[in-house]
Parts: sequence; C-alpha cells; structure tokens
Amino acid sequence: MKRMVFIFTLFLFTGYPIHSQDADSLQISRIYGNALTSFDSFNNLRFLCEKAPGRLVGSKASITAVKYLQKVLFSYSLDSVYLQKFKAPKWDCESDPTLFIVKNKKETKGLNICALGPSVATIEEGLTAPVIEVQNFEELYKLGVEKIKGKMVFFNRPMDSKLYNPGKAYVGAFDQRLHGASNAAKYGAVAVIVRSLTTRIDSFPHSGVVVYQDTITKIPAVAVSTQDAEVLSNHLKKSPDALVKLTVNCKRYKPVESFNLIGEIKGQKNPNEIILIGAHIDAWYNSPGAHDDGAGCVQMVDVLRIFRELKIKPKRTIRVVLFMDEEMEQTGAEEYAAISEKLQCNHYVAIESDGGGHTPRGFSIDANSLTLNSIIRFSKYFEPYKASDFYKGYGGVDIKRLKKFGVPLIGFRADNQRYFDYHHSANDSFDKVNHRELQLGTATIASLVYLIDKFGIEK
Amino acid sequence: MKRMVFIFTLFLFTGYPIHSQDADSLQISRIYGNALTSFDSFNNLRFLCEKAPGRLVGSKASITAVKYLQKVLFSYSLDSVYLQKFKAPKWDCESDPTLFIVKNKKETKGLNICALGPSVATIEEGLTAPVIEVQNFEELYKLGVEKIKGKMVFFNRPMDSKLYNPGKAYVGAFDQRLHGASNAAKYGAVAVIVRSLTTRIDSFPHSGVVVYQDTITKIPAVAVSTQDAEVLSNHLKKSPDALVKLTVNCKRYKPVESFNLIGEIKGQKNPNEIILIGAHIDAWYNSPGAHDDGAGCVQMVDVLRIFRELKIKPKRTIRVVLFMDEEMEQTGAEEYAAISEKLQCNHYVAIESDGGGHTPRGFSIDANSLTLNSIIRFSKYFEPYKASDFYKGYGGVDIKRLKKFGVPLIGFRADNQRYFDYHHSANDSFDKVNHRELQLGTATIASLVYLIDKFGIEK
Repeated sequence: MKRMVFIFTLFLFTGYPIHSQDADSLQISRIYGNALTSFDSFNNLRFLCEKAPGRLVGSKASITAVKYLQKVLFSYSLDSVYLQKFKAPKWDCESDPTLFIVKNKKETKGLNICALGPSVATIEEGLTAPVIEVQNFEELYKLGVEKIKGKMVFFNRPMDSKLYNPGKAYVGAFDQRLHGASNAAKYGAVAVIVRSLTTRIDSFPHSGVVVYQDTITKIPAVAVSTQDAEVLSNHLKKSPDALVKLTVNCKRYKPVESFNLIGEIKGQKNPNEIILIGAHIDAWYNSPGAHDDGAGCVQMVDVLRIFRELKIKPKRTIRVVLFMDEEMEQTGAEEYAAISEKLQCNHYVAIESDGGGHTPRGFSIDANSLTLNSIIRFSKYFEPYKASDFYKGYGGVDIKRLKKFGVPLIGFRADNQRYFDYHHSANDSFDKVNHRELQLGTATIASLVYLIDKFGIEK
Repeated sequence: MKRMVFIFTLFLFTGYPIHSQDADSLQISRIYGNALTSFDSFNNLRFLCEKAPGRLVGSKASITAVKYLQKVLFSYSLDSVYLQKFKAPKWDCESDPTLFIVKNKKETKGLNICALGPSVATIEEGLTAPVIEVQNFEELYKLGVEKIKGKMVFFNRPMDSKLYNPGKAYVGAFDQRLHGASNAAKYGAVAVIVRSLTTRIDSFPHSGVVVYQDTITKIPAVAVSTQDAEVLSNHLKKSPDALVKLTVNCKRYKPVESFNLIGEIKGQKNPNEIILIGAHIDAWYNSPGAHDDGAGCVQMVDVLRIFRELKIKPKRTIRVVLFMDEEMEQTGAEEYAAISEKLQCNHYVAIESDGGGHTPRGFSIDANSLTLNSIIRFSKYFEPYKASDFYKGYGGVDIKRLKKFGVPLIGFRADNQRYFDYHHSANDSFDKVNHRELQLGTATIASLVYLIDKFGIEK
C-alpha cells in the first residue's frame, strides 16, 4: 500500500513531462509484438547452450560464444561492434570430480558432485577421510580443531524454501559455498563438500564461486546434489566414522586473453550519453548457462535488433556490453570500468539482465530518489504487460563497478521461482527457457531503453 | 495508472474495517510457508497425471481420480466428504485417430493429430479426400458448396503470438475448433482438420471441444499439431489436389454414472454461508491434465489441508468442489448448480482455479462494484507475494452457473505465458509443473479464503 500511495503522490505532484502516451504505448506495443514473433534471440540462445556450454572465462567455449555473438551483432549493421581484450583468469578441471562413500576400503556409492571454482585439486590418487556435517559456521567454531582436523567438512544447511523469494533463500545459504572452505581450513579440514544451493531435491550438483582467503591454506571445495546431500547425511547418521574418497583435479592456469563484447547504436543527438545494457557471457563449467546468463546476453543483443528493425533512432547511444567472467572474478567488469574511467565515458544509465529468462516483473533501481522516481514514472507503460513492478533495489554484479561514477543502475527482474532449480548446474539447459517468457523480457528491457532515451531521467 | 488511483481512493474513503493487519499478514506468511514446504499436493498431482491421465468424463481414469482425491480428503478429517452422483456423457476413441498424406494411392507422411471431443467417427476403413485450407469462416463462405463439397476443410489460422495475453490469442482462434465442423458441414465438407491452439511450433496435437449444431450433419473433427499444420499447408501449396486419409473411430456411448467430489470444513459461526473453492477433475483423453486442471484440483484440496494443519477455524463453511466434465459439456457444474438450487444453498462466494499451476498473479472478480471493491481491498496482503493483481474479470466455467443466484465469482489468475504450450495435449504432463509455483498458487487461494472468511465482503 505504501508504494501505491507513493507512486500516486508522485504522479500527482511531480509534473513530469510525459507527453504523447498513446504514441509511446503504441510504439511499446510494436516492440512487444516484434519480440514475441521473432525467434532470433531464441536461436542465439540455443547456440550458446548447445555449442558453447560451460563457457567459463578462459575456456575455448567462452571464445566460441564471443565470436558467435559478435557475428550476430555484425549482422545488425550497428554503428560499432568491438572486443575489449584483457588478461583473464583460467581455471579448469581435467575430469569431473568424484566422491565415493567408502566401505571396507572399497568405493561404493558414488555421489553427484561438481567442483566449486576455482577449487584446488586433491592429490592425484584422491583424498580419503572421514566427514563431519555442520549446518553453519557457528557449529564449526564449536567443534574446533580437535574435531575437524583431518576431516572433510560437509556444509548441509538447505536453502529456506519457506521464503517467498528464492533469491533471499539463496543469499541466506551461500556463505557455506563462498567461505566454507577457508573457514573450515582454519580448523585443519582437508576439503569441503557443500550442499547444492537449490530448493529442489534432485541429482544436479550446482557449482559457484568459492572465495579463498589469501592467508589460509586452500583446500578442495565441491558441491553435492541435494539428493546426495541427504544420502550422505543419512549415511553419516548411521556411520559417523564413515570414510569418503574425493578426487578433484582442477587447477588454475596462467592468465589468458579474453574479451568483453560491445556493440552500439550511436545516438543521433547526444551520442556521448551511453545507455548501457549488459549481461554476462560466461557460464559455469558444468552448465549450458541458459538462464544464467545466456538469456540476458541474447535479450540485450535482441534489443539492438528490435531498435534496428523498428527503425527507432535513439537520441543517446545504446551500448550492449557482454561481460566476460561474471561468475568467478569479474575481471571483465573491472576491465570495462577501468577503460570507461580512462576514456571518461558518460554512462547515462546502466541496465543489467542476470536473473534468468522468465516472465518479466519489472526493474529494481539503484539510484538516488530523484532518479529513482523519474524511472518509476515509466512503470505505467508496463502495466498492460504485468511488468510494472519498479522499486528501489539492486542493479547487478557487472554494472555495480560503474556506481562510483554516479551511474544509475537498473536490474531487470523476472519471475525467479524456478531460477535456482537451474542455476549453475547442468539443468540450466536450453529446453528450460520458454520463448515467450524470454522475449517478453527482451521487449520489457527494449521498452525501458526506448522510454529513458526519449524522455530522459532526472539526475 | 487509473487502477492505482482507484485503489488509492478506495482505501482513503471507504473506511473498510481492516484491523490487525500484522496478525493477518503473519497468518498469511504461515500459510505461504506451510504451502511451500509441503509436497502433499505435488504428490497428489503426480498421481493424477501418472495414474489417471486422460481422465475425461465417463472414463475409468476419471473414476480413479475421484476415488484417489476422495481418499486424500478423507485423510484430512474434514466435517464431510461426499460424492454427487449424476448421469454423465461418455465419448471415447477405440484407437488414436490417424491422418496420412496420400501419394500415388499410398499413405506416406503421417501427421500428428488427435480427435476433438465428441467427434464422430469416419467410416471404418478411413476417409480419403482432398483438403482445402482456410483461415476463417469468411473464406469458407466465399468458397461455397462448389469448392468445399466432398473435401476436408483445414482451418489453419494460428493463434496471434504478438498478443501479450495468450488467453486472448486463444479466444481469437478457437472459433475454428468450436464451430469449424458445423460451419464446414453446411457446405458439404466431409471432415475438418484444425490447427492446434498453441503459439508453439511442435509435434503435440491439442484437443478440445467441438460443438455440433443439432440440425447439421456431424462430421469428424481432429486437431493437427502446429508443426504438421505447416507440413500440410506446404504440401497443399505444392499439390492443391493432394489427398489425405483420415481415420477416426471415436464415438459416444450411453450416459454413465459419474461424480462431483465435495469436501467441507464446517463454519464455526455461519455454517450455512459457503465459500466454494472449485476446480475440475476431468482432462482431455490425450492429456495427463497437469496444468488443466490437475493443478487446480490439488490446490483446492490442499487449501483444506492447510486450514487443518494451521488449525484455522473458519466462521463460514469452506467447501471444495471438484467438478466432473468441465471439458466437454459441464454436466458436473450443471448438476451442482441444480442441487444447490434445490437445497437453497447459500454460496457466500465461489473461487475457481482453472488457469494452470504457474506463478500466481492475483484474481479476476465477477461481481458488482460494491463486492468487487470489498475484495480488491485484500490485494495489499498479496503485495509481498507479487500476487496483488485483483481486477474485474471472469470467474470460471464451472462456477459461472452460480452467477444467476447472485454469487460473487472469483477466478484465480496465474502467469499464463506457458499455459497454451501444454493445454489439452500430451505435453501437459507432471514434469511441466514447478512445485514452488504450484504451491504459491495454493497459498494465494488459501490466503484469500482466510481473508474473505475473516473480514467478510460487501454485498
């Protein structure tokens, strides 16, 4: 209710100059119509998932993906398409990590796991050790060195499925994945096994980043599927001294050449004012990366196609940036921000899509009140598409490095109820994306770009 | 914008007595938490889809479904669980209909089709005839008897995928399926082939009802998958005189015994005021009926489970009605309405879920302004769950027969972007339903029932 009163008051008293709503509503309806009847972005997504799965930074697949989307951008006769080259991290696994429950010195039940990145390796022949299950860091501290030394720590706190917002449930559980390894290593643990971050009970392990503290021994870190987390937990209840054998042969290589991919339609009136629309091209090594973030990439690329096809000539420059390495170290975003600073780029606004290709709900906006309100005024145009949920919130991982330059940040928000079923796993495949939902997202972003470009925002 | 001002004004001036919002918000959060962590309804849905697929009225599967859900209702220790017995239509196909393109008197390419219900049969050995493709009834009229007599008419107008609301696109195309057969028969057509009603291009044929006019010859009516509609259309472009061979051996049987299933929690204060929550138990012969309408059934049943588990004692009677035969002739709804009239049942309100088990968006309300506004006031409770889209609109097929008694009708509205991918086809299977989305729907309905029961509505 509060928000409604707020929006109402806003409309009544700010007197924003929104003219010709009918013409703009009509243009927006054209944008939605074009998006819903085009299969270009859907086919681009199919390519990313099927021809360049596991396109983690530094991988061959990541370069295949960049080259493919570069070609797509070229085909739109844009004003410029270019690569931003930089040295990027490379980490990879020679083979899939394995985890076995050991009985009578024999490997018995194999559990579905994947490596967290950039996990270090075990010794080549694998690591056999007992396991201790904990729910959180407090338990770890209470157990102390005596109970933990020489063991693998199994972090098994599930995401809280009671919460309406699975994103909130994710954030409430991901400390185990991010900091489990370093926290366990402090007490002499030899490896960590983390319950996959999803509310589904299934056999897919979900990868993600592990953050190693510099001063602490790096130990191997893997994620186990939720189904096998239950198997392991039940096994430990019956046999607390049970041994497991973990083999991980992933490693960091020397930094390699990588790229952000950029494509632009030059503004007709204020070409120096850049409306950035971004997503990330990389995906975890074990995942086709359909929703995370192939969807965002093909949506942003498709925004330019729509502008071209509908012959919309923006006042400001519309720049697609497909960032490399969002997943591990955000070196692409760092590079982009550094070059932007050097060139004194004037980013008018930055919009990111990294929440999946599901039905759009609106945008979360990270900006001062004046700017926020001037963006919220556009929400009425999205009511017919049920995507009018505009609110103060987070922009995005890749664009947040532009915040220090005062750039308003906008996160595209799609329905996220299914998102963590797929996130960072082999289950994030092309068939999980619905064409209409994906393209409604594309149209929603394209329409906001159109409105911001045409009417401007308050700063 | 208009709606927002309207809602705002409503809150400001109507002075509805909404007290203790915090306690109610808390109760609603318990309802959502319970729903999201329970797998009962999900498992019930699995049963309906896997053990009782194709549960069209009159079928064995429909009785299996009734018996199963009756047992589920019994297990909740309700105040009453009973069946409403009536004579229902029975129509069935001895085998799957087939359609072949004929070349040199040989059946070549087989096309994916299903029967529309209650289609009549072809002659046993199948019907071989030329095909004429039309987009709409106007074309049919222009072609006239001369061009149509002795041919099969192929209605091939696609759903308009440009439209945001696929429900609107469905309504814009379903005249071909409903009235194509009778309209074509007027001009001497021997059968109709209707393009499946979905925006997807795939191999699933989508069934649905065909309405035969009493005075016109009944001709066989089938639906062809969208993919094969394109195949057939392309073939006809190259070979306008091409023959196809259609075999349909479906028929009507004598009416059989069937049932509506009813379960109740009796009201503590006003037991005679009935809050009806309904869905339909039947599904097309070719479909597991997951979203249509297994989802609705298990949601409504689960509302009672939640009330029991959370020990919510309603003032009014909460009555689940699982209607038989929504798909073909609504004989279940007719029977229910007739008995209600006879017993002078006092339905306080009727809520229907028949739009799929996707993420909830809100409710469409078919009632006078006073009642409408008094229901819309509850929408604020659903803002945290992004299901606050309450608006004047359609109630539902089964409950609409209560409208003549002045009962306010409410349709549960879920995101429908994927709905017609599945609707009336073999693709409407259990794996297409997401547990969280289904249960958010359950919680949304249960919460509205809770609020209507507690605070009442204006009439």
